[in-house]
Amino acid sequence: MIPVSEFFPIWNSLTAAQKQRLEAAAVKKHAPGGTILHRGSDECSGLVLISSGQLRVYTTSDDGREITLYRLLERDICLFSAACMMSGIQFELQVSAERDTEFWLVSPEVYSALMKESAPIANFTNSIIASRFTEVMWLMDQLLWKRMDQRIAKFLLEEAALNDSMTLKLTHEAIANHLGTAREVVTRMLKYFQSEGAVKLSRGAIEILDAGRLERISD
Amino acid sequence: MIPVSEFFPIWNSLTAAQKQRLEAAAVKKHAPGGTILHRGSDECSGLVLISSGQLRVYTTSDDGREITLYRLLERDICLFSAACMMSGIQFELQVSAERDTEFWLVSPEVYSALMKESAPIANFTNSIIASRFTEVMWLMDQLLWKRMDQRIAKFLLEEAALNDSMTLKLTHEAIANHLGTAREVVTRMLKYFQSEGAVKLSRGAIEILDAGRLERISD
Repeated sequence: MIPVSEFFPIWNSLTAAQKQRLEAAAVKKHAPGGTILHRGSDECSGLVLISSGQLRVYTTSDDGREITLYRLLERDICLFSAACMMSGIQFELQVSAERDTEFWLVSPEVYSALMKESAPIANFTNSIIASRFTEVMWLMDQLLWKRMDQRIAKFLLEEAALNDSMTLKLTHEAIANHLGTAREVVTRMLKYFQSEGAVKLSRGAIEILDAGRLERISD
Repeated sequence: MIPVSEFFPIWNSLTAAQKQRLEAAAVKKHAPGGTILHRGSDECSGLVLISSGQLRVYTTSDDGREITLYRLLERDICLFSAACMMSGIQFELQVSAERDTEFWLVSPEVYSALMKESAPIANFTNSIIASRFTEVMWLMDQLLWKRMDQRIAKFLLEEAALNDSMTLKLTHEAIANHLGTAREVVTRMLKYFQSEGAVKLSRGAIEILDAGRLERISD
């Protein structure tokens, strides 16, 4: 496990007592791929410090459609699983483990007490929220001004990079849930990509044949 | 003018010296309706504390289309006009005065120094970012899962409430820029609302005849 201290670039600005309280408030956890770690309306689970694995943060519509807001990887901190700590946050997110994930779960009570007394912790937390805000603004930009072919091409390239493989084991439904669209739209677009020689479709998998072509589409 | 102290619910947690620095860093300003106060790529203007008037915070596409993220009114603080203060913020917003606006402009250098030393200021700033994040997530929800007729109906009702008038002096172009869509889409929808007896269209104005009907559409 990555030590708790390494998640906090401001570690050296903390007092010995604060360091101790933060470490004592962190519990080792493991979630198999597919686990839902946090549901919007759930109680406040706590801060998640990801030691290994991958989380997906997403939002859902009333009728169960989904869109991925961003992914969190090793060394990232998931704050919204402790949204109760922050008075201004009034929206609901879901967090699931996309792979086997090892993490520290930090008690929201302890963390929020530390935020209250320590300006470095408060400002560091601030910078995490600001980064997530930046990711959501990027997504908003995509939703507003990019066409679906660009978004799907970009998503396939990102998946290939995350998995370090040109063969993606993804259903059309899963892609639709990442991008907040309907399965039919994804299927139609993937068939078009295939006719252009950019991908090869088979049962339950998509093989990228021409990444350069996908890059040109996504630009 | 509303005194600087009243913008900060945490005022009493500050030292006398901090209060003094914050007040000394605030300069009275006035912007006539229509003024652009902050352009994404501009230098860091500073925190805006709105004493009276109305600001619009929006984002634009490369080809000049716009969408309103949220409005700020009397007693609100505009933080993103000082986005340079926050390391994690990497997106560009525009801020314009929609009406004559009187405000305090607070130096970003002084404010960011205060944030560094004062946990109450850092946490208060945090709660402002969290509130704006909430507004953007609300908008995202609208964009993703609501139909355009619902969004236009809701927008007309909000405008009527903001202006305390059932006659809105708004072009179809302006509405399109608020909602991130094309003028033609707005015109088509308004004509539909008119055919349903919900509004009456005239040159440069929209009169709401049946607010209840618009409410039912927006739900």
